[in-house]
Amino acid sequence: MAPNVVRSAISIFFEYDTPRIVHIKSKKVGVINRFLQLVIIGYIIGYAIIFKKGYQKVDTIQSAVTTKVKGVAFLNGSEVPNIESSLWDVADYVVPAQENNALFVITNLIVTPNQRQGICGEDKNIPGANCTTDATCALMTGKSLPTGNGILTGVCNTTSNTCEVRSWCPIENGDTKVPKNPVLLQSKDFTVFIKNNIEFPYYNIKRRNILGIQNDSQLKTCRYNPSDPIYKFCPIFVLGDIVAMAGEDYKNMSQSGGVMQVLINWDCNLDLSLEDCVPKYTFRRLDSADFSISKGFNFRYAKYYRDPDGTEVRTLYKAFGIKYIITVIGQAGKFNVVPLLLNIGSGLGLLAMATILCDVVVLYVLKAKNVYREKKYLNVVGDDAYKTMENETDNN
Amino acid sequence: MAPNVVRSAISIFFEYDTPRIVHIKSKKVGVINRFLQLVIIGYIIGYAIIFKKGYQKVDTIQSAVTTKVKGVAFLNGSEVPNIESSLWDVADYVVPAQENNALFVITNLIVTPNQRQGICGEDKNIPGANCTTDATCALMTGKSLPTGNGILTGVCNTTSNTCEVRSWCPIENGDTKVPKNPVLLQSKDFTVFIKNNIEFPYYNIKRRNILGIQNDSQLKTCRYNPSDPIYKFCPIFVLGDIVAMAGEDYKNMSQSGGVMQVLINWDCNLDLSLEDCVPKYTFRRLDSADFSISKGFNFRYAKYYRDPDGTEVRTLYKAFGIKYIITVIGQAGKFNVVPLLLNIGSGLGLLAMATILCDVVVLYVLKAKNVYREKKYLNVVGDDAYKTMENETDNN
Amino acid sequence: MAPNVVRSAISIFFEYDTPRIVHIKSKKVGVINRFLQLVIIGYIIGYAIIFKKGYQKVDTIQSAVTTKVKGVAFLNGSEVPNIESSLWDVADYVVPAQENNALFVITNLIVTPNQRQGICGEDKNIPGANCTTDATCALMTGKSLPTGNGILTGVCNTTSNTCEVRSWCPIENGDTKVPKNPVLLQSKDFTVFIKNNIEFPYYNIKRRNILGIQNDSQLKTCRYNPSDPIYKFCPIFVLGDIVAMAGEDYKNMSQSGGVMQVLINWDCNLDLSLEDCVPKYTFRRLDSADFSISKGFNFRYAKYYRDPDGTEVRTLYKAFGIKYIITVIGQAGKFNVVPLLLNIGSGLGLLAMATILCDVVVLYVLKAKNVYREKKYLNVVGDDAYKTMENETDNN
Repeated sequence: MAPNVVRSAISIFFEYDTPRIVHIKSKKVGVINRFLQLVIIGYIIGYAIIFKKGYQKVDTIQSAVTTKVKGVAFLNGSEVPNIESSLWDVADYVVPAQENNALFVITNLIVTPNQRQGICGEDKNIPGANCTTDATCALMTGKSLPTGNGILTGVCNTTSNTCEVRSWCPIENGDTKVPKNPVLLQSKDFTVFIKNNIEFPYYNIKRRNILGIQNDSQLKTCRYNPSDPIYKFCPIFVLGDIVAMAGEDYKNMSQSGGVMQVLINWDCNLDLSLEDCVPKYTFRRLDSADFSISKGFNFRYAKYYRDPDGTEVRTLYKAFGIKYIITVIGQAGKFNVVPLLLNIGSGLGLLAMATILCDVVVLYVLKAKNVYREKKYLNVVGDDAYKTMENETDNN
Repeated sequence: MAPNVVRSAISIFFEYDTPRIVHIKSKKVGVINRFLQLVIIGYIIGYAIIFKKGYQKVDTIQSAVTTKVKGVAFLNGSEVPNIESSLWDVADYVVPAQENNALFVITNLIVTPNQRQGICGEDKNIPGANCTTDATCALMTGKSLPTGNGILTGVCNTTSNTCEVRSWCPIENGDTKVPKNPVLLQSKDFTVFIKNNIEFPYYNIKRRNILGIQNDSQLKTCRYNPSDPIYKFCPIFVLGDIVAMAGEDYKNMSQSGGVMQVLINWDCNLDLSLEDCVPKYTFRRLDSADFSISKGFNFRYAKYYRDPDGTEVRTLYKAFGIKYIITVIGQAGKFNVVPLLLNIGSGLGLLAMATILCDVVVLYVLKAKNVYREKKYLNVVGDDAYKTMENETDNN
Repeated sequence: MAPNVVRSAISIFFEYDTPRIVHIKSKKVGVINRFLQLVIIGYIIGYAIIFKKGYQKVDTIQSAVTTKVKGVAFLNGSEVPNIESSLWDVADYVVPAQENNALFVITNLIVTPNQRQGICGEDKNIPGANCTTDATCALMTGKSLPTGNGILTGVCNTTSNTCEVRSWCPIENGDTKVPKNPVLLQSKDFTVFIKNNIEFPYYNIKRRNILGIQNDSQLKTCRYNPSDPIYKFCPIFVLGDIVAMAGEDYKNMSQSGGVMQVLINWDCNLDLSLEDCVPKYTFRRLDSADFSISKGFNFRYAKYYRDPDGTEVRTLYKAFGIKYIITVIGQAGKFNVVPLLLNIGSGLGLLAMATILCDVVVLYVLKAKNVYREKKYLNVVGDDAYKTMENETDNN
């Protein structure tokens, strides 16, 4: 027995099974079959392998972005309430000073200077703040009105005809409209140097978005221009250009603020020259300007001082501005035999579809279907009756 | 020869190959076969195509999030050391004023006011700081103790019985416990307006999370409520509700701080009405409260002032609070013939599994296995002996 | 008719189709066939299923990172222009105080103290700023020079021989070189506690990166050490070690700043013990130091004060430093029957490749190719001539 087992185990290595095939010479089915095969092979080779680079193994990107804004703007105090004429530079208008993959530039302001902790009348635009007698205010004593600016004392301030609140006084005036001419509209001409270092760790490729720039002085003077062969790789962008390239109007957007996306796409084919591994920039406004309610982007921040007597004073800023979110995406592909085989393998699976569809035509549609069926199928009756089967005529 | 080549090249287009099949009529194998096929087809159609929407091409999301907190809290100076009673508003308790996809709200504080550069005794809780004579301190002169607050001068301060350090004086008192009643517990009632604009660039669909809200006044008064048909789309959340919906206790969490995630999921089926493309909110605490050591979230920041004589003074805040991380995920799917074909194709591949399993039953298990084997296989002896083979009886 | 339909519908369930096979006994083809099958099966089982864990369903990670830096540094005023000797602690050198998944530590400084809004001579390093007469400056009156610090008044300052600008005065001196000895080089010994809580929502697994640490005091004293069996799980890192583990020089990097990545990888196999689900740390410099132009990382920020008379004063800091970006990636896999079946299914598809390649050998290469072809193929002539076909000899 043992030698038999060994012998048959060995013989397994010298065997080969291949399906038996009916080879049909027919113009109708042949054409359908070849057409379907062509479509599938075209899809596999043309789309999955060549177009989608199915012969490449891809590596994902690791990226670092740092930004540096340059530019100064003169704020004319005669045009904006509550603020003196002053020059604003990067330490003033970029808040916070440093962000990860993002950048905020103030474009418009509502300023409430010299606020001190104290008691004063609530803003009359707050629902429920208006009063004529203390009775109106007494109900909520010790609490704040919804969206209110302070804690109610229960007293009605007869000067402002609003309930008195414990708060930072004076309270930001709810009547103040955001200036129609953005106070820092000159930010349109500011430039931002977006420095992007990337790495494809698997292929150990490092690149950065400073390309084709020869020296420091050229780097300092260049400005990004998508239609210039060299300056389309310049990493310095004019803020106004970024907004314009997204199809938006800078003045409009800077009045009530907004969110822009700078998308940097590194789509690298490492089978070609590394020189072709370059970034592509896309600009898009992320918050919609179309909506009538709640548009723009703003937030409040304060600068804190101390009076000579030690009292804390602050200047409250309601800052409108443009937030630039820098998103880096990308991948690097290089020829590799494993994904190629996988694509060919799954493509062969699809080829079976052509056979199935043609079988339907051959076995159910064509005039000679019975002949084909006879050739394709060998009928065998089940085991319950396998005695009788053996007596049947072999219909090949 | 040439015409022959052309003729056979053309004839290839009029050929069709289809496998020859043994068609077995057997209850046992038939049932197994149909059952396996049903399972596989059910998986393909039911799971891969219908449930997993395998007939759709999906686009990934581009998202912008901005947040705006509203609310004021009164800090009672009699309950907290070192700080006067004061009203805290959004410019005070949101630090930094603006973050990308995140928001931090102070809920508890340890304050060390009026620090100046100088020399004072180290905090006695720092290991190695206690001393009785200068000798203890002299060893590390010019260096700082691990986790120490300043550079050792080498002198032992006989008042505090700790080594003297050059530091911001007075030093934050290590004995100060974080207040049991969070000083800004009223932040529980603050609201945050999470404005989320999304875009599916491939399908050119823009949506935002303000839905079903008719006008500005309704938007201002609504509060998110997952069980209300309209307010489940309200983008204004009460901070206490966010924490409660994650199953956490606000007072507990606000005492030593923590990290919350607000997950916004846009899972859109563009084959249906665009109106059904709505956000789904999930709330989760990201840092675990279960651990005994190192719990919560806090950081130190300072406000800098100048004395009238020009000396720099600062107030150091150890701020405990809740960090809200807003994560937006999502995808949009629409019918497309390519993924549909791919799913059908790979499904057909799986169907071959049914045949392989049934073949095992038919050829090795059933009583009539020899009959089936005889019908299925046509044995051919290898080329080394193909002469003899031709003399063999054809067993069909 | 009706009963016939029912009967044939039922009979479909008792049928089974299996391809007819030519079973070839040949050493040459057998060996090729088995070799190819072995390669493919080896690939499927060894690579796709075992190595790539194709039997597992994976869940993606949700992560929260908070950081806390400890350490103080003494800045020696005699070595740096414009700044008095002072002790810098975490509230001074971490800017902004709190970031999401990132951390910036100042290592070097250029300070411009006591700036006030006013009129002064432009920095002479700005192109176009030098002048001898007002005429040079008059052309751009009311505008700023590119990369200039203020708005030109049109007057030439005869002391500095540069155009006068309205700006924060005095202007940051463009001649000031960044100190060769980084002013906060002692930051090399600072520690950062990177607290990372993760969750695999699908498997409801929560972990954090504090492992094998028994108590609070051990947690406070441990330092990350990749070669120590316990301290490789210590979440406290020395800043100098992070930079060294990325193969960089701390002094060099801290002079002009840079960007580091701390990559935390949670690759968890939930089929094994949960204890093996541990983080792996990788350190990498993201900005390249190799480039000669535009290296490092710096930004400007200011501290704002008020003079006793109420005038705003600021100290401008050009801060060079190291930005640590903390990236958390990871996945958790657990046995699941669906991905296992999918991998087996697509593997079976690949097995068809072995048959196709062997068929080429059998039908076109081997000496006995005609015999095999005869056995494999049953030629049928198309429907247009199926009459004649029936008269043909059945060549089996």
